[in-house]
Amino acid sequence: MRKPKIVILGAGYGGLMVATRLQKSVGTNEAEIVLVNKNDYHYETTWLHEASAGTLHHDRVRYDIKDVIDRNKVEFVQGTALEIKTEEKKVILESGEIDYDYLVVSLGAEPETFGIKGLKEHAFSIVNVNAARQIREHIEYQFATYNTDAEKKDERLTIVVGGAGFTGIEFLGELANRVPELCKEYDVDYHKVKIICVEAAPMVLPGFDPELVNYAVSHLEKKGVQFMIGTAIKEATPEGIIVGKGEDEVEEIKAATVVWAAGVRGNSIIENSGIEAMRGRVKVQPDLRAPGHDNLFIIGDCSLIINEEINRPYPPTAQIAMQQGEVCARNITALIRNKTELETFTPDIKGTVCSLGEHDAIGVAFGKKMVGTKASFMKKMIDNRALYMVGGPSLVLKKGKFNVL
Amino acid sequence: MRKPKIVILGAGYGGLMVATRLQKSVGTNEAEIVLVNKNDYHYETTWLHEASAGTLHHDRVRYDIKDVIDRNKVEFVQGTALEIKTEEKKVILESGEIDYDYLVVSLGAEPETFGIKGLKEHAFSIVNVNAARQIREHIEYQFATYNTDAEKKDERLTIVVGGAGFTGIEFLGELANRVPELCKEYDVDYHKVKIICVEAAPMVLPGFDPELVNYAVSHLEKKGVQFMIGTAIKEATPEGIIVGKGEDEVEEIKAATVVWAAGVRGNSIIENSGIEAMRGRVKVQPDLRAPGHDNLFIIGDCSLIINEEINRPYPPTAQIAMQQGEVCARNITALIRNKTELETFTPDIKGTVCSLGEHDAIGVAFGKKMVGTKASFMKKMIDNRALYMVGGPSLVLKKGKFNVL
Repeated sequence: MRKPKIVILGAGYGGLMVATRLQKSVGTNEAEIVLVNKNDYHYETTWLHEASAGTLHHDRVRYDIKDVIDRNKVEFVQGTALEIKTEEKKVILESGEIDYDYLVVSLGAEPETFGIKGLKEHAFSIVNVNAARQIREHIEYQFATYNTDAEKKDERLTIVVGGAGFTGIEFLGELANRVPELCKEYDVDYHKVKIICVEAAPMVLPGFDPELVNYAVSHLEKKGVQFMIGTAIKEATPEGIIVGKGEDEVEEIKAATVVWAAGVRGNSIIENSGIEAMRGRVKVQPDLRAPGHDNLFIIGDCSLIINEEINRPYPPTAQIAMQQGEVCARNITALIRNKTELETFTPDIKGTVCSLGEHDAIGVAFGKKMVGTKASFMKKMIDNRALYMVGGPSLVLKKGKFNVL
Repeated sequence: MRKPKIVILGAGYGGLMVATRLQKSVGTNEAEIVLVNKNDYHYETTWLHEASAGTLHHDRVRYDIKDVIDRNKVEFVQGTALEIKTEEKKVILESGEIDYDYLVVSLGAEPETFGIKGLKEHAFSIVNVNAARQIREHIEYQFATYNTDAEKKDERLTIVVGGAGFTGIEFLGELANRVPELCKEYDVDYHKVKIICVEAAPMVLPGFDPELVNYAVSHLEKKGVQFMIGTAIKEATPEGIIVGKGEDEVEEIKAATVVWAAGVRGNSIIENSGIEAMRGRVKVQPDLRAPGHDNLFIIGDCSLIINEEINRPYPPTAQIAMQQGEVCARNITALIRNKTELETFTPDIKGTVCSLGEHDAIGVAFGKKMVGTKASFMKKMIDNRALYMVGGPSLVLKKGKFNVL
């Protein structure tokens, strides 16, 4: 009898969780396990804002996949998935193809630009390691160039962050800490630098406790961040952005750096493969399978789970992706052992902490609101826990965050 | 009786030497001494290639002028000189003007582009700290961007250095060491990187011993540098350069980074002020005064001294500028004491060492040819000596180079 073949697409939080759990639960005789990922490394998506601002080196944000998988159990294929042929049970890669009996799609998110003109061309997005270090270097280059211009262009020192959600706020926190260092490095007058957060919604950090939001905003404002709330970006141009002002008016904000952090959507491979989705996110069944596909699991940012309490989707987070990964691994193990009863996934939100730079944060953990160093410490514990879940104590020691103050 | 006012324009090797020698030799009652410089720091022009390649931080390459001048004796004015009005004995600054009785012009060199089209717009020059860190950041940004391009552009990884003279070769040595680090930092395949040296003259390092030149070329070639000797740059474009090939043909070399290191000329203020000069360099009298101006000394890269042995001008170097500074200070001291006999300047070339990266070099010192670590050590001694001459042992300890291997 042929061994069933389990293919996992993507080595993010969810995919690595599936792979590391399956390599423990499934015997080599029971199934073949293949992990496919674009890079030979995993990166901590939730730490990319630090690498983008330049406050944490990008090598601290990634680790080799081979360090955490058991290569006797899991075959690693470096490749980029282009399309899933569900009828033929195979995945088309950029080079070659791969067939499967069970497929896990854990491909993460893409930036959602909501059709805003010029954003794709003229704005950066904090999407991966390549993008993060490009943003870091782009900002540094603007500072480095400022003093070489015959006529000083202050817009070189203007950084616009689109979006006051989780990623936007965390990135602003790092930027606010980084800018004084950049000013020193490149002999730039701190008062010439502008960091502007433009948010279309009428609020910062929707879903967060208002007291915590106030703390975050006043912390960032004290560090020089300007907030333009309830202000929509109409267009991004080579010179900056154009925002709506009042009913019909628009205003140009000149900025050499525009970082779009206002939204994500599921991976476009989902739609390219004809799987029903909303903005690339599939409303999965309780057992994490795509509706109508009994061998296709979708987890992480490409899945959509409804929070019944408020009847809204849970925002995609690493926390949920990892919890889904564990359930997904158990359900696949059950399936290859011909069990029909699959486990139902229910998110267990232990807490949410939004960092405001290295030594400050706001958040709720174990039902308690917290700010400042306490919240910042909790954030580092959350970051270290993600490492621990995938790679155990050795990975925490290697890549963990310990600089508490 | 009014005290004579000595104004020194420029705090490079020559200018600082004049200032630090005058503050020792001249009493506060004898003369007023003013040092004018664009920045409040001095930088080691001969180390800028390291800061440009990113192998030495630019803060290691500069120090505060106030750390080496005696402010009871020398007044420091931060300003940019635009024109010298010799008849009126005053200097026009970007803001304000300053009158003098004795003027020392020690303003250093500017890049000489020989009218080659596009060079000023599209090529970098290693001229000062601002330019050096811009070059460093520009190169880093190209590497950082390489992996984010949907279609990889290998020309992002091509660096053209125009000129195989002293600066060109020293910069190539640093680049060759830096590129493997950049490849690691940005996950770039080393074999995709090209470092090309384009030199119009039929030789590398003219004036150097052929055996040493061979050592340098083969060292750099081993590290991946391609030499295109006897090849003239016809034009620089936003995409790279166009070089002559054979009689009438041209060839395009696509390169995101073009650094022009093929020639310098004196400061253009010389011509703007109606002082007779060749490419901004004034053939000074033996006592270092400009012909026809008995209160105007010109030293360093704006002066031109003929090497009688070969009937050619000495190339402008820090060594000569500093020696001129000492003589200039003694001659001014003599003049304010109403002595008429001035000292004649004769260069005393102690040696010339061209570095090939941190741990290798070629050169001649005290009449001996040397290569490798010995030459590299000698280079560091020369660099440290320049610090010692201006700021004594404390400046050497603060800014010196000691990492011998």
